[in-house]
Amino acid sequence: MPGLPQTVTDALAALLGRRFSQAPSDLDIHGRNETHFAPAPPDAVAYPRTTEEVAAILRICAPAGVPVTAWGAGTSLEGHALAIRGGVCVDFSQMDKVLEIFPQDMLVRIQPGLTREALNTELRTTGLMFPVDPGANASLGGMAATRASGTTAVRYGTMRDNVLGLEVVLADGRVIRTGTMARKSSAGYDLTGLFVGAEGTLGLITELTLRLHGQPEAISAAVCAFPAMGPAVEAVIATIQSGIPMARIEFVDTATVAAFNAEARAAMPQRPHLLVEFHGSEAGVAEQAARFGEIARDFGAGAFQWAARPEDRSRLWKMRHEAYWSILRLRPGATAWVTDVCVPISRLAEAVEETAAEIAASPIPGPILGHVGDGNFHAVLLVAPEDGAEVAAAKRLAANMAERALRLGGTVTGEHGIGMGKLDYMEREHGAGWDVMGQIKRALDPANLLNPGKMVRPDGA
Amino acid sequence: MPGLPQTVTDALAALLGRRFSQAPSDLDIHGRNETHFAPAPPDAVAYPRTTEEVAAILRICAPAGVPVTAWGAGTSLEGHALAIRGGVCVDFSQMDKVLEIFPQDMLVRIQPGLTREALNTELRTTGLMFPVDPGANASLGGMAATRASGTTAVRYGTMRDNVLGLEVVLADGRVIRTGTMARKSSAGYDLTGLFVGAEGTLGLITELTLRLHGQPEAISAAVCAFPAMGPAVEAVIATIQSGIPMARIEFVDTATVAAFNAEARAAMPQRPHLLVEFHGSEAGVAEQAARFGEIARDFGAGAFQWAARPEDRSRLWKMRHEAYWSILRLRPGATAWVTDVCVPISRLAEAVEETAAEIAASPIPGPILGHVGDGNFHAVLLVAPEDGAEVAAAKRLAANMAERALRLGGTVTGEHGIGMGKLDYMEREHGAGWDVMGQIKRALDPANLLNPGKMVRPDGA
Repeated sequence: MPGLPQTVTDALAALLGRRFSQAPSDLDIHGRNETHFAPAPPDAVAYPRTTEEVAAILRICAPAGVPVTAWGAGTSLEGHALAIRGGVCVDFSQMDKVLEIFPQDMLVRIQPGLTREALNTELRTTGLMFPVDPGANASLGGMAATRASGTTAVRYGTMRDNVLGLEVVLADGRVIRTGTMARKSSAGYDLTGLFVGAEGTLGLITELTLRLHGQPEAISAAVCAFPAMGPAVEAVIATIQSGIPMARIEFVDTATVAAFNAEARAAMPQRPHLLVEFHGSEAGVAEQAARFGEIARDFGAGAFQWAARPEDRSRLWKMRHEAYWSILRLRPGATAWVTDVCVPISRLAEAVEETAAEIAASPIPGPILGHVGDGNFHAVLLVAPEDGAEVAAAKRLAANMAERALRLGGTVTGEHGIGMGKLDYMEREHGAGWDVMGQIKRALDPANLLNPGKMVRPDGA
Repeated sequence: MPGLPQTVTDALAALLGRRFSQAPSDLDIHGRNETHFAPAPPDAVAYPRTTEEVAAILRICAPAGVPVTAWGAGTSLEGHALAIRGGVCVDFSQMDKVLEIFPQDMLVRIQPGLTREALNTELRTTGLMFPVDPGANASLGGMAATRASGTTAVRYGTMRDNVLGLEVVLADGRVIRTGTMARKSSAGYDLTGLFVGAEGTLGLITELTLRLHGQPEAISAAVCAFPAMGPAVEAVIATIQSGIPMARIEFVDTATVAAFNAEARAAMPQRPHLLVEFHGSEAGVAEQAARFGEIARDFGAGAFQWAARPEDRSRLWKMRHEAYWSILRLRPGATAWVTDVCVPISRLAEAVEETAAEIAASPIPGPILGHVGDGNFHAVLLVAPEDGAEVAAAKRLAANMAERALRLGGTVTGEHGIGMGKLDYMEREHGAGWDVMGQIKRALDPANLLNPGKMVRPDGA
């Protein structure tokens, strides 16, 4: 990588002053990732504060052929923001404002660097909430770019469903707005949907209009143990098919429970569990809980432990959200390979049980947990990074999970995205549709400047 | 229009036999539309039965530069399927099969010519339903292509939300599949979302995977009169903001009520009404109805007339679905200009009342009705087609409605699409985003063969 042309460095420094950095520590921080991918630092980091600055960065970089990669909160598990071809990392942490709340329309206009927790803190007194919850305190721009979802998607949908409009800076510096503030529209191609999930390869998101939801009148959460993995998953399938509007329905296996018990000083029985939450009116929540309880009992669930008080619920979901870290600490020194497949709900038990059996027969531990109401689950493969046999085993397990998901009619990534880890599966999953993605990429970013090397065929840009 | 080259005619006749037609009656039928646009017959009509035949049609037409326009059930209100540059009309009426029902996954795989009523008839014994309901018995391929919605979108979403995957034949005859059978995915650009709403300008839909929903355990419907338009619309706004999961909430003005009374021998008070429906458990429906009743009373609603029996509900929604025809018969000999705007819910009262006042001050009648839970409403402008002053007035009213919607943060079409009628607003609504749509069109259909003259800038293809 030859580094940046001096003209580009000078122009960016003139534009941004101290908000343009080539300090080694900055490059280092923006070259790292949460999981096992090799570091890939950019040549410089820019901290814009306005859409106009983002557009100016593109107008400086594009003529010089300098790659531009967006950075949100750095919580991606697939190395999305790694600057594998160098260039400028655009860090959105200084574009983190709530621009306007529209309580009557249940919408909010925000900047991309705002995190989901910060947004919900700002919304606390409005009676509204933004429900999409990938666990990490990700930036909302990053969540849109990766089509994130998480524990509440079973009820409230993913980012695809909750982004109503965007402002996007294109590769050539043009600024467009997608969507309106109306709840639906038939006017033209769905550009909002095209940029959501494009992982920064088609444009940089500089503003989002998000749908909000009413804070539920009543919330109730519980955990319950099952005799084995199969019945727990079968209970999920039956629950979803029954139409109970679950707000959350999460599976954790016995190994994950052990991590919880060690980390959070919980005292959960060492068995597979479901963690559930109900949202609605008081009567509605009671009815949902009763119906779910009947189904769970049919599949051998033990007694429910209810988390009725807000602080008990917070503790429960904090434990779930920190599962990744708790699991990592089960094996000090290990690196995590976090898999992420999603299958049709009818094939979920089969997919989970085959995966568990294969991990059990492998040399590495791999607790399983997931947003099973969507058919989405993860194995966190704990690999000794210097042990070639373990790395090979992890690769094989991850590959088999992806291939199993495709064979069962599912997808190689339910919510973590393509990033560095899943590019090799794009052709398998999409066939000629992957070529169409490449055609769109070439149309909008002909010089392959935006997050190059990701999402589409490397020679296709 | 020079007609088709002989080589194309010969090749299509050899491919399709008697399912290739140039009979004047066939051309005439496929050159008409439901509203006021001038007829535009194709040069030929093809009736494929398989995806392979559709691909072969494209492989024959593309090298000869022959336009190809898809035809579903012909129920579009914006002349989407008019063959304004001639060429071949691909009529999907012989691709109308349910291919496979997946009851456990609540999905169905169908061909595009299947109508929504035929699908729901096939689903009747499964406990499942496909809820998207634009009124007309449209083909599901056409509904996807136009991103249709209708009375139930407030609860179940539009076609954007209910199409999980597609098979599409591209302009060059390539066949791609988009989406999987998993409920969510983060794998790549959202091609499903791109083709839904593209109005046949990017590809021809040859198969759809649709989300199904459980038939509600309990259903309850009612009509109630309001003292005036303003309070009725304000009641809708309050209802949506309260989070009551309305299955339907429809507004009809006094003129529409008069049409109902004349047509369906209803005896509704000559005042604005809301038509509502609740879906859920027995207890849930009762709770929703009680909460809605309180809100309606706060805004001066009269007594509810409940439609408890299935046949009463059928009569109610049949009357609503046939409103367009009932309204047309209010003024024999008139042509209907059906407008379709959608605004943020907070601006709905303002939008409806300004529109009503402007129509009242014009020389033409224009009953107003709509899917107000989405902020979406229509005025059906009844125009004497030979009267230049009336036509000019209708054009002005329609233009003002569109501009008002944009000014209020909304869209020029909530559900009817662009077709022939809204092309002039694309730049106003999307700005530079419209250029991006043109770039995508050129990338996927460089010769502008698919439904040419629609959706994107005419010189942009």
